[in-house]
Amino acid sequence: MDIQHIVIASPMHKEIQKIIEEKGLDKDFRYLSDEELTQNDLDWADAFVSFSMKGEFDYQKLKWVHSLGAGVDRFLYKQEWPEGVTLTRTVCSFGQRIAEYCLSYLLKDLQEHDQFHSFKQQKSWQPMTPRLLNEQKVMIYGTGEIGQTTAQILSSFGVEVYGVSLSGKVKEGFKQVMTLDDHYEKLSEMDYIINTLPLTEQTFKLFNEKIFGLLSARGFINVGRGASLDEGALLNAFAKNQLKFAVLDVFAEEPLPVNNQLWEHPNVIITPHISAVTTAREGVECFIETLKNIEESKMLFNKVDVTRGY
Amino acid sequence: MDIQHIVIASPMHKEIQKIIEEKGLDKDFRYLSDEELTQNDLDWADAFVSFSMKGEFDYQKLKWVHSLGAGVDRFLYKQEWPEGVTLTRTVCSFGQRIAEYCLSYLLKDLQEHDQFHSFKQQKSWQPMTPRLLNEQKVMIYGTGEIGQTTAQILSSFGVEVYGVSLSGKVKEGFKQVMTLDDHYEKLSEMDYIINTLPLTEQTFKLFNEKIFGLLSARGFINVGRGASLDEGALLNAFAKNQLKFAVLDVFAEEPLPVNNQLWEHPNVIITPHISAVTTAREGVECFIETLKNIEESKMLFNKVDVTRGY
Repeated sequence: MDIQHIVIASPMHKEIQKIIEEKGLDKDFRYLSDEELTQNDLDWADAFVSFSMKGEFDYQKLKWVHSLGAGVDRFLYKQEWPEGVTLTRTVCSFGQRIAEYCLSYLLKDLQEHDQFHSFKQQKSWQPMTPRLLNEQKVMIYGTGEIGQTTAQILSSFGVEVYGVSLSGKVKEGFKQVMTLDDHYEKLSEMDYIINTLPLTEQTFKLFNEKIFGLLSARGFINVGRGASLDEGALLNAFAKNQLKFAVLDVFAEEPLPVNNQLWEHPNVIITPHISAVTTAREGVECFIETLKNIEESKMLFNKVDVTRGY
Repeated sequence: MDIQHIVIASPMHKEIQKIIEEKGLDKDFRYLSDEELTQNDLDWADAFVSFSMKGEFDYQKLKWVHSLGAGVDRFLYKQEWPEGVTLTRTVCSFGQRIAEYCLSYLLKDLQEHDQFHSFKQQKSWQPMTPRLLNEQKVMIYGTGEIGQTTAQILSSFGVEVYGVSLSGKVKEGFKQVMTLDDHYEKLSEMDYIINTLPLTEQTFKLFNEKIFGLLSARGFINVGRGASLDEGALLNAFAKNQLKFAVLDVFAEEPLPVNNQLWEHPNVIITPHISAVTTAREGVECFIETLKNIEESKMLFNKVDVTRGY
């Protein structure tokens, strides 16, 4: 595939431009903020690089679209995909980033950071024994690169890690991988639940009363997509003591609106969609690698199956 | 060595008794709290098992003393050791426990837990990129079982780990091991400093103005001994911005007195000597394994060099 004209639309377009210019690629670029993008740019371009696609434009003349993020729901979810256009996504250190994010919150809980912080405020010396990772069971939804890296890191500490995927196919790092249909009976044993799934019609509000009702767990971590969580069901799970805390990095609406009650809930930790940030440099490196693979007609490790949605 | 009479003096003597009785050992035991211990018990015993030794007693008739803790300064530091008596110490999951403790506080810092907690209280959506472990450099003082397990776990995440030991001997998990004398020039590069050293005359107030003055680091973690830290020098290091925070699990005086200013310092995290707890079951298992080795005259993996002090 021959790619000559490339439009990059991103809030970090200036940083990206600087890094791409260092690389000295023999291509024509237009660097824009998302707001500056016009239909004219898309008609000129062979390739479009961005975090999302806007419904009002026609993308049919493009050859290739590359997502600067790992998630592609802002390209595919409830949108019709322009036929014949290749879609790729950024795959870089997301697995490592999300694994460290999740591990940090598991350890915060196991090591009783909050409890010792509150004892300190009282100047109170009250020994408690931290719990070890090798006594924990974790269920990870999603066994792709992110889920698997997280599983491998946790299992290296002796955590018993279970996976849930569409196929239920065995993967390294997991003690067992189940399908959505057959995983329910294992849920009651879990200490922590981690969602890494992409947003598709199957994962919309997947975390609802049915799943939370089966839990007797400490924590739920959502690093997948906000719309996969039924927020009301989560709040009920706290009320019924099925869950002690949640760590949420993604939300159905982002930024999370100030009137959302999650902000004030004491059992909820909120981070502003930072568990797997694409830095400009990493984004550019993945884009350039993919560009080379496309021009040399190589297998694309990061090609998205647009009918499957991820 | 023939061991028949064993005195166990510990705050958890009842739990220990229960576990030992399950094991059905053919020995005579006395289980006591530390306060109940008398000279008569020590004269009767072949072996004494405890967390510490009291200066007022004569331990000369014993054959073997076993420390329920990993540290033996409460047996050796500024005390004369009864000649010819074997001293062993508990070695169990301390390395793993301390590694998870240290990792939890590194990740708390790298993942900006406190910052996001305070943004949440303000209902403020402010993305910040967490830092990855593989961008960090850590200096670990002590390359014994605890230091080494911590080094191996951190280096598995790509952390650049340096060690400091008496010998400077290379050990797996460390990029480089230095002696106390030749490690100073490396200090300015470090992001985190971890002390795991035992208390000896060489390590008394080791962490003083000399070391802190060379730092431009984020965190200092003390899981070794409290008397190795010059508290005034630590407070100065905060004032001079040589260090952002300290995590202290051990103190020169424990429990930490309520009038100690560390309690109120915002940059200090205090935990009540819990980073490497001996659970009763682990303590008993290590004691029984050592007992068997002693009776069969095997090499003792956990024998203390009483002249070296650890």
